[in-house]
Amino acid sequence: MAVATQSLEELCINSIRFLAVDAIEKSKSGHPGLPMGAAPMAFVLWDRFMRYNPKNPKWFNRDRFVLSAGHGCMLQYAMLYLTGYDSVTIEDIKQFRQWGSRTPGHPENFETAGVEVTTGPLGQGIANGVGLAIAEAHLAAKFNKPDAKIVDHYTYVILGDGCNMEGISGEAASFAGHLGLGKLIALYDDNHISIDGSTDVAFTEDVSKRFEAYGWHVLHVENGNTDLEAISKAIEAAKAVTDKPTMIKVTTTIGYGSPNKQNTAGIHGAALGADETALTRQNLGWTYGPFEIPQDALNHTRKAVERGAGYETDWNNTFADYKAKYPQEAAEFERYVSGKLPDGWDKVLPTYTPEDKPLPTRKHSENCLNKLAAVLPELIGGSADLTHSNLTELKGFGDFQKGQYQNRNIHFGVREHGMGAICNGMALHTSGLIPYGATFLIFTDYMRAAIRLAALSQAGSIWVMTHDSIGQGEDGPTHQPIETLASLRAIPDLTVIRPADGNETSGAYTVAIEKSKAHASTLLAFTRQNVPNLAGTSIEGVKKGGYIVVDSQGTPDIILIGTGSELSLCVTAAEKLTAEGKKVRVVSMPSTDLFEAQDAAYRESVLPKAVTKRVSVEAGTSFGWHKYIGTEGEAVSIDRFGASAPGGTCMEKFGFTVENVLATAKKVLG
Amino acid sequence: MAVATQSLEELCINSIRFLAVDAIEKSKSGHPGLPMGAAPMAFVLWDRFMRYNPKNPKWFNRDRFVLSAGHGCMLQYAMLYLTGYDSVTIEDIKQFRQWGSRTPGHPENFETAGVEVTTGPLGQGIANGVGLAIAEAHLAAKFNKPDAKIVDHYTYVILGDGCNMEGISGEAASFAGHLGLGKLIALYDDNHISIDGSTDVAFTEDVSKRFEAYGWHVLHVENGNTDLEAISKAIEAAKAVTDKPTMIKVTTTIGYGSPNKQNTAGIHGAALGADETALTRQNLGWTYGPFEIPQDALNHTRKAVERGAGYETDWNNTFADYKAKYPQEAAEFERYVSGKLPDGWDKVLPTYTPEDKPLPTRKHSENCLNKLAAVLPELIGGSADLTHSNLTELKGFGDFQKGQYQNRNIHFGVREHGMGAICNGMALHTSGLIPYGATFLIFTDYMRAAIRLAALSQAGSIWVMTHDSIGQGEDGPTHQPIETLASLRAIPDLTVIRPADGNETSGAYTVAIEKSKAHASTLLAFTRQNVPNLAGTSIEGVKKGGYIVVDSQGTPDIILIGTGSELSLCVTAAEKLTAEGKKVRVVSMPSTDLFEAQDAAYRESVLPKAVTKRVSVEAGTSFGWHKYIGTEGEAVSIDRFGASAPGGTCMEKFGFTVENVLATAKKVLG
Repeated sequence: MAVATQSLEELCINSIRFLAVDAIEKSKSGHPGLPMGAAPMAFVLWDRFMRYNPKNPKWFNRDRFVLSAGHGCMLQYAMLYLTGYDSVTIEDIKQFRQWGSRTPGHPENFETAGVEVTTGPLGQGIANGVGLAIAEAHLAAKFNKPDAKIVDHYTYVILGDGCNMEGISGEAASFAGHLGLGKLIALYDDNHISIDGSTDVAFTEDVSKRFEAYGWHVLHVENGNTDLEAISKAIEAAKAVTDKPTMIKVTTTIGYGSPNKQNTAGIHGAALGADETALTRQNLGWTYGPFEIPQDALNHTRKAVERGAGYETDWNNTFADYKAKYPQEAAEFERYVSGKLPDGWDKVLPTYTPEDKPLPTRKHSENCLNKLAAVLPELIGGSADLTHSNLTELKGFGDFQKGQYQNRNIHFGVREHGMGAICNGMALHTSGLIPYGATFLIFTDYMRAAIRLAALSQAGSIWVMTHDSIGQGEDGPTHQPIETLASLRAIPDLTVIRPADGNETSGAYTVAIEKSKAHASTLLAFTRQNVPNLAGTSIEGVKKGGYIVVDSQGTPDIILIGTGSELSLCVTAAEKLTAEGKKVRVVSMPSTDLFEAQDAAYRESVLPKAVTKRVSVEAGTSFGWHKYIGTEGEAVSIDRFGASAPGGTCMEKFGFTVENVLATAKKVLG
Repeated sequence: MAVATQSLEELCINSIRFLAVDAIEKSKSGHPGLPMGAAPMAFVLWDRFMRYNPKNPKWFNRDRFVLSAGHGCMLQYAMLYLTGYDSVTIEDIKQFRQWGSRTPGHPENFETAGVEVTTGPLGQGIANGVGLAIAEAHLAAKFNKPDAKIVDHYTYVILGDGCNMEGISGEAASFAGHLGLGKLIALYDDNHISIDGSTDVAFTEDVSKRFEAYGWHVLHVENGNTDLEAISKAIEAAKAVTDKPTMIKVTTTIGYGSPNKQNTAGIHGAALGADETALTRQNLGWTYGPFEIPQDALNHTRKAVERGAGYETDWNNTFADYKAKYPQEAAEFERYVSGKLPDGWDKVLPTYTPEDKPLPTRKHSENCLNKLAAVLPELIGGSADLTHSNLTELKGFGDFQKGQYQNRNIHFGVREHGMGAICNGMALHTSGLIPYGATFLIFTDYMRAAIRLAALSQAGSIWVMTHDSIGQGEDGPTHQPIETLASLRAIPDLTVIRPADGNETSGAYTVAIEKSKAHASTLLAFTRQNVPNLAGTSIEGVKKGGYIVVDSQGTPDIILIGTGSELSLCVTAAEKLTAEGKKVRVVSMPSTDLFEAQDAAYRESVLPKAVTKRVSVEAGTSFGWHKYIGTEGEAVSIDRFGASAPGGTCMEKFGFTVENVLATAKKVLG
């Protein structure tokens, strides 16, 4: 394998390898195996195929690149450095995995310009890639004209054995095959090694055949270590097939070049050590010092800067033509990309009075979604096969299907986790789309990793979750959330909102849409069952997370805090207590996250420290409520699994009745 | 489709259909489509193939049946009733989906004898089935002798389109193919309909080809509606292939027999209504009233009782022979099945003093697992491709692989969700196995639905989770748990334990093993990094969940509450505060779940109401801690995502230092 003289391309490829080796050796932490093995495919892709502009990482029409095998992030940092991105300098590479660096342990889009999505948790990246390709297909179908294609890019993904073992990748790949996303090209780094050793110990399926079964175009590069032409030809062939996504299995040697560690699990996730690093240098004929890149290599890879400027100039010209011919569409496109909302968009959201008939908040949600769909063409999404239970159809906007990419209703199938990561990919296309995904609240458990990543990676995904309590009813404890709201509220940077009625549902959507544009994710929890419209609820109140809906004269004796379907119990109980001469405040708390974001003075005005007699009422666990009810308060809650019975029966049996709220309040009042 | 005269078998099959139709019509809730379409395959399976004893649902060597498409539970209740189980009477069927009934909205093993596992959340059942088949293969390899097979049964699963769309089923099926589980036979009810309509809207992959890619033996019954012989032949062919699991695609019509609703989504999840029920009776020539089963049909299906008694008698004879020839093995087998632990098993768990060297608790966990493995041969499990990070190898007990089923180290691959449901299946084999599954704590997000189902379905799975905080270090925020512990503590009936040192790790395993045998699930959270062994920690303390490790003379001025790696910060801070004249108590709280299970007097003795100055210290979210620190306390916590840097740096930067604990305590002291 030793090379006497290296071609320029070999020099470039070895530059990638040794940037990874040296950075990981310096930090004594990281994963050199993948960058060393996948360097050739990355080089060919970035050098011969990918269109991007290093000096403007956010250039709209760039090809999107996703390193789904995120642990191999030094591959991506090396490419960003070599191709001339300002976000990754050689100093940044020397700071690999250190506090405050731009080269964290896995690719993070919010830390490093040029990184599109946050990967590391395996399988997320390929599913994000499906989302990016859906965004491209949708925008292309919407905006492109026969004489002017302003949306026209590929999505490339490098994924590994680990990604392919995860169920989420199967969900997303099956869906991508169904949709025929021809501009999605995945390179599978087939190196037969995972952390436990050879993939023979756990993973012996025929991956290519599986992707064929999904409807993908599948290719194989037998020698991904040195056969650059085969890699090139495969990518060309992939591009030539426009009605199917392509999976190129690229067989490589993990840790290629390390004489004693290549093709072993030992090189997957640990520094080579000084001796093996030296031996690897020798073996690959690498005469350069740590972090030293031969000028010839850099001169070559940095041609990307000029190429990129040219791509962007060409596209700017195309867009100028487009704008001249199609000013209205161009204006809309520009608004999309700016991330701005159209003026007055929120005026369409309805408000209600107590005279309006009781409805499930999922029905209010359907109404909001459809009102918003008319004024926000960037709103696009759907359900994981529960469209008519979640009530998430955007009526009149068609189904997003192969050849019908202009449409806005996505049928994700029973693939919650894939749906989550696909929505995140759509959001992180950074083209102004507002993606939403829906299922029963309980099934957030299936997609939790994607929900967390939405929050972490600043993807403005909106999660529309219905059947939000034991009110779900007959389906029973497997389908009834208990701990679910608490478990979601605990996630940083995710805003959870559980509206009580029509006004609060409008408030919830107001927040969710604004947050989406601000790159923050929101989860909305809606009832299956009818709830009355209450006096005192408001959109403005929801924005503050918690607010007073019923108040007493003077300092209250007791505060009842309700959310969602249980707020009306508090209101009715307060009426009865007031009739008995008690001073009662009712606080609606649709979102503890939003409430915590208010200043201390506001929070004190709603929940004064002096009032220690408090009762929370929520058809879910008490976990987390003691922050608001204190040690002297009581939670009307359910701290066990639910039961199969009609929803009203469940509510009654588990104590979500005015009588029980009253009794609990009286107990607290003493 | 109308039938003038019905054969006995048609009569039986229509009995299944109308039990479903009538029960769902009465409750006005449920899913008739699957039972109507899958009745023929269920009948053939239960009548011609499956070995079970209705009068002893727990007979050890029964074939296991799993309805992965759990929404079709009326199919299973109908089979249990028709074959003579006492758990489901006609009165129970009339109480379908009602409060307190034995016929809940999805199959629940803890409610209905004869139901093996709890299904409903899609894809779980097929993965449970893989676990059941693993349990069978392991016990057969361990106990069977050439002249006496005491473990010898099949696992049959009926799954639907929804199950096959979920990633978890792909993970489990890939693994089953890898392991060559020849006694796992899955019948795929291929009815082309899911809730959103035709599977054409989202699911057009070639499922059979995908299963072939996984290494399964795949068959197709083209007419699953009426061709009973084809179903029979397929099951025979499946049994004949002993080195691969078999997937039989059985093409059916959802809601078969309903003239206007069959083959539509309308019959998937809603009652037929009175008119369509009448028309269906007419169409299928069903002259019987609601819940009326023709005596000929019942006479036939109830033959299962006599058959079952015979199977059990035969097996009892086999076991008697076995016991005579192999008394030692028979005694061990009997202990397994009894669910009892061997005397003195917990004596092997080590204890420590502060002089013992600091180690990561994951290392203590490895030590416990290996000590326990020697005395508990029923301990079997492994990691989702992180064996040498989680430190979960049972050394000397070999890898569980195809043809090596006697071994006890399972390499699950990067398939956390599949691992979870497989462990649950092994636990619910009810043969005394103690299954454990391991990954990084953060990746509980990938397997949360299975963790919840372990708790709900009373499966004694043990979850071994390492890298339990930002101390994880360089991998960064995608890999660092923040909200994870809180989100798990909120799950009912799951015991979460985060031990502080060696003694507490021994305590954690004591609890986890005992709970496993009592059919309760435990999640253990271990550090990546070293922690000191502390004075005052104990196994007994862990059993109580929270206990005093350092105390003051008289009523304390302040209580510091620590868990896991942060307990030592509390101990050191307490020393300093004591030196400054403060009276300080330190409480170790490895498990809030266990603490809550203690009586009020004990809890008061540890955390007296009178002491309101309290500080909790845990490298995770503050969410949930206010129950213990009250409104006057403070949480030393991290309420944002972490960062990529060495673990020690993260701990320091985010305030998990003695200095910050001290400063916080002083702030609380005022």
